[in-house]
Order: sequence, then C-alpha cells, then structure tokens
Amino acid sequence: MRVLIKNCNLISMSENRKKYEENIDLLIEDKLITRIDKDIEEKVDKVIDATGKIIMPGLINTHSHISMSIFRETVDGYKTQDWLKEKIWPMEDKLQEEDIYWATLLSCIEMIKTGTTTINDMYFMTDKIIEAALETGIRLQTTRTLMGYEEKDDQRLKELEELIEKYNQDTISFNVGIHGLYTSNEQYVKKCIKFAENKNLPIHMHFCENEQEREDIKRDYNVKTPLEIILRDFNKTHNILAHSVKLDEQDIKELSKTNSYISHCPVSNLKLGCGIAKIKEMLENGLCVSLGTDGQGSGSNLDMFETMKFTALLQKGVNENPELLPAYEILKMATINGAKALKLDKKIGSIEVGKRADIIMINLNNILTQPLNNIFAQIVYNVKGTDVEMTMINGKIIMENKRLEGIKETQICEKCSQIIKRISK
Amino acid sequence: MRVLIKNCNLISMSENRKKYEENIDLLIEDKLITRIDKDIEEKVDKVIDATGKIIMPGLINTHSHISMSIFRETVDGYKTQDWLKEKIWPMEDKLQEEDIYWATLLSCIEMIKTGTTTINDMYFMTDKIIEAALETGIRLQTTRTLMGYEEKDDQRLKELEELIEKYNQDTISFNVGIHGLYTSNEQYVKKCIKFAENKNLPIHMHFCENEQEREDIKRDYNVKTPLEIILRDFNKTHNILAHSVKLDEQDIKELSKTNSYISHCPVSNLKLGCGIAKIKEMLENGLCVSLGTDGQGSGSNLDMFETMKFTALLQKGVNENPELLPAYEILKMATINGAKALKLDKKIGSIEVGKRADIIMINLNNILTQPLNNIFAQIVYNVKGTDVEMTMINGKIIMENKRLEGIKETQICEKCSQIIKRISK
Repeated sequence: MRVLIKNCNLISMSENRKKYEENIDLLIEDKLITRIDKDIEEKVDKVIDATGKIIMPGLINTHSHISMSIFRETVDGYKTQDWLKEKIWPMEDKLQEEDIYWATLLSCIEMIKTGTTTINDMYFMTDKIIEAALETGIRLQTTRTLMGYEEKDDQRLKELEELIEKYNQDTISFNVGIHGLYTSNEQYVKKCIKFAENKNLPIHMHFCENEQEREDIKRDYNVKTPLEIILRDFNKTHNILAHSVKLDEQDIKELSKTNSYISHCPVSNLKLGCGIAKIKEMLENGLCVSLGTDGQGSGSNLDMFETMKFTALLQKGVNENPELLPAYEILKMATINGAKALKLDKKIGSIEVGKRADIIMINLNNILTQPLNNIFAQIVYNVKGTDVEMTMINGKIIMENKRLEGIKETQICEKCSQIIKRISK
Repeated sequence: MRVLIKNCNLISMSENRKKYEENIDLLIEDKLITRIDKDIEEKVDKVIDATGKIIMPGLINTHSHISMSIFRETVDGYKTQDWLKEKIWPMEDKLQEEDIYWATLLSCIEMIKTGTTTINDMYFMTDKIIEAALETGIRLQTTRTLMGYEEKDDQRLKELEELIEKYNQDTISFNVGIHGLYTSNEQYVKKCIKFAENKNLPIHMHFCENEQEREDIKRDYNVKTPLEIILRDFNKTHNILAHSVKLDEQDIKELSKTNSYISHCPVSNLKLGCGIAKIKEMLENGLCVSLGTDGQGSGSNLDMFETMKFTALLQKGVNENPELLPAYEILKMATINGAKALKLDKKIGSIEVGKRADIIMINLNNILTQPLNNIFAQIVYNVKGTDVEMTMINGKIIMENKRLEGIKETQICEKCSQIIKRISK
C-alpha cells in the first residue's frame, strides 16, 4: 500500500530537520516512510489531506500494564499496599486468559485513539496481550513478568523464551521484564540479567518507585543504596527503569554512568503518593528520560498528552523555575527518547526516510487551542488525546477521522464491565 | 421556558441528598430548578434525555483573567517577570476595547464547552467583558481591577461603582478586585476595603502567589508576614484570595480565623514556577478551598476538569499520601465551594429546588472512561472538558450536543489570531 500525506505541518522530531515545517508531503510505502518533500506527485492508493493539521511521530509509552484497564479508578482514597492487598491481588487471582484479551483490547483502542503507537507492557498471560495487540495493530514491546526466589520460578524465563520464539516480529518485540529487585532474590535477578545479555534484550524493571521499596531493597540486598546493585549487576545491560522516584542526586550521578533509561510516570507516582521524580537532575546528568502512564489502576488512563503536561508542569513547579523543560523537550521524551529507551530508535520515534511509518495527525483547529502562539506548547499543554484524528502504525491507517474500522467498542466496554463485576465479587 | 431533564444520573452536590442517584428527573422553570423527583410527568417546552449521562452542577472557576485568552502559550520557557515585562505588558498597552470583547468571547465559549458556568474575572475594560458574557450567557462575577498609589487612582473605584450601577443583575455580579498588596499602597488598599464594606461586596485579590511577592509585601508594609495585614485590615470582609501558594502553616492557621476563601490555581502555579499551595493544611484548618484556572497566559486553558485532576494528584503526591482528597472532595471544590467563595451559594453550586439552573451533562460512555468503577473518580481523573455535551446557565440551554447555537467560532478564532499578531509586532 502506498499512502501520500499532503500538506503536513510537520514536527518530525528528527535531528536532521527543522523542528517545525509547513507544507510538507510524506510518502509511505508498505511499512516505511520513503520520501519527505514538498509537492510530492506520485500515484498512490490513498491520499490523506493534512491541511491545517499537525503531523508528528506516534507517541511511545515506555511503562504500563495495559491489561489493568479494568481496574481504572479502583484506587481512589486507598493506601497503595491496602489497595493491592485488599482489591487488586484478589481480583488478579481470578483473571482468566479471555479477560486479559478483552482488557488489553480496551487499552489498545484507548491508546490508538489518543495517539500512542508503541507501548512497553509488563504483565502476565502475555499470549493474550500479544493477540490483542496484533488484532488492533499497535506496536508492542512486552515480556513475561519475572519474579522469583526458587528453582521452579525458572519456568517463567522458559515461558519468555517460548514467547520470543513464537511471536518476535515487526510490531512485537521483547524485553526482560524483571518485576523489581524487591520481588526477587539476588540469584534470580542474576539469572534474568544473564538471559538478557545472552539474548541481547533490554531489561525493563520497576525501580525505586517509593520509599518503602527503596528501604526493602537496602535491607534484602544489604546495600547502602539500590544504585550499588545497578552499578554491580546491571552494568552491561540496556535498562529501562520505570519510576525511579526515590533517587537522590548521588544515585542519579551514578546511574548516568550505566546504560539506563528512565520511564517517568508522573501521574501514577502522584496518585499512589510516591512523590515526584527528580527529572531536572536526571536531565542535567545526561540521562535519557522517556514517559510512561503506568497501568490505569494507578495512572487512570493511557493518554500520553496528559503525561506530557504533568511532566513539564511538575518540574517547573517543584523547582520553582518556569524556564525548565520547554515544550519541545517534552515532545522528545514522548517520542524519540521513548524509542531510544526501547532500543527501537532505528525503527521509530521520528519521521525520517527509512523509518517505520508510525504517525499521528492532530487537529489544532478548535477554540481550546487558539490562538496558535506556540505550536509545541499547544501540543503539550492544550491538546487532548482525543484531538488525534488519524493514527498510522507500521504504515497502516489504524484510525481515520477518529474512527477505528471494524472495532466493536461497545462490545469491548461491556465485556470489561462484566469482567470487573465478576472478579470483584 | 419549562425544561425537563429525564433519567439523570445525578451528582447534585447537595448536602441534603445522596451523593449519587440514578433515574432522577429535574424540572426547570424559567431560571430555577423547581422539582427534583422520580418520574416527573409535566407538560414542558423541551425535554432533555439524560439516559446514561451524568448531570451535575456547572463548574465554578474562582480566579481568571479571561481576556488573556490571546496570550495562550506565550510564556513557555520564560521567567515570569521577563515574560510580563518583555511580552505581556507591552502587548496589553496596545489592547483596544474591541480586542477585549473578542478575547473574552473566545474564553466564554471555551468555558461553556468544558462545563464551566460561572467565572470570577479580574481585568480591565470591564464593559467589554460584561458585553461578551451577556452575549454568551455565562455567569460572571467581575470587577474593575484596582491598583493605586495616588489620589488620581481613585478614578478606578469610581469606574467600579459605575459598572455596578449599570450592570448588576442576575448573571452579572461584582466584587472588589484589588490586584494585590504589592501593587497598591496601604492607603489605597484601605480605601478599597472600605468600599467593599460599604457595598457589602467580596474582595478578590492575588495573595502570596510567589516568594518574591511575599518578600515585597513584607518590605513595603513593614510586616513579618503578609498575614498581619489580612488579620488587621481584612477581618470584616469576605475575601477571595487567589493562589495563596507561599503561606506557611502558621499563616494558614491565622488565615482560617478570617472570612477568607482560597482560589487554588495549581496549573498556573506550576507553570510560572511559583510552587504548590498547601491545600492539605488549608483543609485541615477548615478553610474553604475553591478552584481557579488563572488566565490562559499562565494557566494554558480554562478547563476546570484538568484543574480538578491537578489539585487531587498534587496533594496526594507532595504529601506522599494517596488517601488525601478523594474525588468527591474535589468535586465540591469545583462547585459548591466555588459558590461559597463568590458568595453565590444561595443561588448556585448545587442542584437543589430553588437554586438557579446552572447544570452540565457529561457523557461517560466512551472507552476512555470505562469501566465505570467509581463515578466521582472517573470525573476527576478521566473526563475531559470536551466530554461535556450540554451546558445550561440560569435555566437557558447554552450548549446542546456540544454545539452553541448562533456562535461563530471560526470568526472568533480568526479575530483573536489577528489581535495577537497586531499587538505582538
């Protein structure tokens, strides 16, 4: 299939182009962006008119648990541990494979509708998550969540190996999802690291999300700071570290010496009362910061536009410095930095010839984003995920005019309502 | 005109009703809510079917400068004082009456579309602001902004008196808008307080928005804390204090002894690098906290749903306590607390028989708010202003099916673009 997107107001996020260009045409052939130019005249199967619209790379969400859509807004007013113990874990025990499929479908549609084209997920019954991702077309990096203390827990690594053999392909990639240092012992974590090294896969791990976790790690691993473990054991791997809220300035300095990528999840961190990550200091130390929503159980939704806004405002606010994090830097976090975090930056994260066509079209032509004094800031501060009109993933138009072809939204919503009713009994 | 709203899922915000009720009908006659009941059978001019929708009071924005819509996203990356001196003030000098009219129209429509029915504004050329408010039907509390050092500045109080005589009516009310303690001297502030006492009007004032302002007040008024002035001079008046970010715990204790109402503007406070107000401590001390967006120059937009979300998450996050501020408390801040702040709580702020019909209808029936585990939390965390489908103010349907009858949005947007182009030259 050949698609021509005409008259783009282009935010390519490419280092080799201007930050913002008008009247640009994009040619997409099969999965790839093959030409970026003025006035492309080519015979194509489909023309998309982007006049007056913004065209930019699809957003990349580097940390979530998308099957948790069914737990949306069950947390309000709870202490995190009470919420997990009293509500989430008993419900998760009742989840069946079919439930995971429907809950994931709901999330995939939520993401496509709000401009996210790539998601880094961590959950279980991964077969069903992949099935929903393939059905909707979303680009997925996934894992079989790993936690272990005993020999028998090695089964989980075997499951991951089988998943990789079965599903590794263009829109489905894998990482080694170690749930956290506090939910495995040292031997098991080392096995997982070895696995990641052998397979040359990134590691994806919750890290220092809250004070309790930090204290648990210090006690269980007998270290002064969790950074000791990262410096000692995770120094050869590519590490995607979700949250990283409870790092002090020295930790951040040390972390920047490793090949570690931050997945900053500000909404979830606030909602669970974890605190606010030191993003300013991370950037000053050269760490690559990408953005995540976390699962809807804690993050409420998967709208990356909201996450961008929270990221910018929190750093300006807590550091009492409005000059911090100009909007374009935030757009980088939600696109190219996300691609780097997932080791997919040769494929996605910017609009460049030779990259996969993961592209979104945003309508800024409404009264809530007028006048258009600063396009980048409009996107970060005033665009809502639902202003995305078109979502293309791997060259395929998944949503056009805000409509997903062939997706039965009502049925999916009903299924998810039934699931939460059943498992919360 | 008699309107019947059928089958409401009602969040009335009334202390005399359940927090959430299903299958309720509302009868509206002229400006008033006259019946709230099951299965009302009455001959009416218009029926609105609310099946599956949420009906709640219109939101009340207690601090803004709505004519600043044209400055949306001009601030990004600037220090506040540089932004004001280099950008805003030179542009404001060029503003003409007609500009204020168009800029205000844009804001009125933005509010109506996102469920705000009452706005507390502070700006100048107030005639034109009132004209736009009357044209769109929004409920406005306003002032002529007061700042003064000399005898001639008394002219501003005279202007306010003329405005009150000319426009005081059902949907237009007034307060005494003292810009701030740092932009007037003590004599002038006392004159304004006297004026408020004589007219029995609330005072609306910026207060302790940032550290610099706090220091300026301490120096100019020779006090140890700005609270000394409030306790001494503002102890008989009803005070709406916008921002109040830089209050310590002792200040908050003292403030709670006065008749003061907080207008919390979290988005603007973050964006200008002011910090985060101690809302938890204010609530613990019994202060009434309402919500504001501030003008779009600093607050980006007038979407009160966003402001609700920021309010809840910031307090949970900075206090590292997820139990704080359950969603229903946030809804109170955006409705009945706002009405109390503006001394309009006998008229608006909840859906009760005898109150003015300021009502919004929200569509929760989309994939981004599913499943509906907790209605209040869904509204605070996942509803976007643009999910509001119907807005009624003073018994009049201003927006239905997301459309405003007779409003030329495109023309208004174009006018505003032209204004900012002209004045930024």
